[in-house]
Amino acid sequence: MTTFDVIAFDADDTLWHSESLYAAAQEEYRRLLAPYAEAEMIDRVLHQTEMQNLAVYGYGVKGFALSMIEAALELSQRQISGSEVQRVLDLAKQMLSTDVELIEGVAEVIAQLARTYPLMLITKGDLAHQEAKIEQSGLKPYFRSIEVITDKTPQSYAALLIRHHIEPERFLMIGNSLRSDVLPVLEIGGQAVHVPYAITWAHEHVDVPLDQQGRYHELEHLGQLPALVRQLEQ
Amino acid sequence: MTTFDVIAFDADDTLWHSESLYAAAQEEYRRLLAPYAEAEMIDRVLHQTEMQNLAVYGYGVKGFALSMIEAALELSQRQISGSEVQRVLDLAKQMLSTDVELIEGVAEVIAQLARTYPLMLITKGDLAHQEAKIEQSGLKPYFRSIEVITDKTPQSYAALLIRHHIEPERFLMIGNSLRSDVLPVLEIGGQAVHVPYAITWAHEHVDVPLDQQGRYHELEHLGQLPALVRQLEQ
Repeated sequence: MTTFDVIAFDADDTLWHSESLYAAAQEEYRRLLAPYAEAEMIDRVLHQTEMQNLAVYGYGVKGFALSMIEAALELSQRQISGSEVQRVLDLAKQMLSTDVELIEGVAEVIAQLARTYPLMLITKGDLAHQEAKIEQSGLKPYFRSIEVITDKTPQSYAALLIRHHIEPERFLMIGNSLRSDVLPVLEIGGQAVHVPYAITWAHEHVDVPLDQQGRYHELEHLGQLPALVRQLEQ
Repeated sequence: MTTFDVIAFDADDTLWHSESLYAAAQEEYRRLLAPYAEAEMIDRVLHQTEMQNLAVYGYGVKGFALSMIEAALELSQRQISGSEVQRVLDLAKQMLSTDVELIEGVAEVIAQLARTYPLMLITKGDLAHQEAKIEQSGLKPYFRSIEVITDKTPQSYAALLIRHHIEPERFLMIGNSLRSDVLPVLEIGGQAVHVPYAITWAHEHVDVPLDQQGRYHELEHLGQLPALVRQLEQ
């Protein structure tokens, strides 16, 4: 009998690049708004707008696009031109239609672990966009179930495990976000592996829990996961 | 033994008002753009823009908001002002934060049927917005499961029934949309009840199937559903 009934993965910035697309869009956005404000101010107002809108828009590119437009109006004191607003819309569409690019080593690790474990994908964001990326990734056949949820909280993980009849102590979650993939899973008694992404969204900065009870693991890249799983099985 | 293992409901315009919010927003949008174009032209360009964007934005208010801004740029030949763009953003936020208003009789019918049948809610749209509406509706405790999906096709219904171990002939779906709630369910062998909403989105106009095999039912309002279900059980 294995230690884990299910191994679950976050998607954005764990299996494929996502934050790099946001970073590229934001760089373009800074250039576009350079006539109206300094780069630092642009970043600050955009971030504040995103945070204020999170409860009403949720995660994902469409909410980000609406926040970019709102912040642009504020930064330009409503002086932004129609053509500039159009450029922001174009940025959003470009983000939504960019091909999924898997992170190095992911395809091999997922294929390998799927031979032994039921794999689950747990992601948040725009439903339509996430499903399109999952389809495009080529990884869909390896996942027993795919869950797109609005937010990753202890409550949402607990509800998900109940629905799938999984005991928390037999659940392993892998992801790049301490806030979303690690802390809530540890809180409900699961095990979690943190695999940091090269870029971290400002919203994601949190402290590592002190009381880890041997259920928290950190890897430099996903290629190291099969060895860790073997070790945890012993 | 009952005829149905599960009775499933669409949400927007079946359980609560939604299209009326879109209609009110669109009326406000027409007023806003009146300096740039005729009402008929505004409606046509907005609808075209929505349809073109459906594949990339999916259903829901956020995609509608982005399409409203894009159409406004086109209709005004990029002359729309920053303050007017802000008004469109405000319209979207207003739609997202309007309280859910149940359709008359819904609360009673759902409570009554939930005593005999496992109920399921199957809806499409923005995940975050749909979940907020479900929470707010007060109906959540009556539903055994809640599914927010990107699109309602024969394939997506079939996948959902497989996942829940439901035979199509023991599945009854109720909704206001022939295109989304009725035709795909009939196609996979289920039964479906059409309860039209007062307003129908242009995208929804389709013909009623000729070959209904006694599996298609139409009601004027949801209050008639318990009597229909009793009749189908005989």
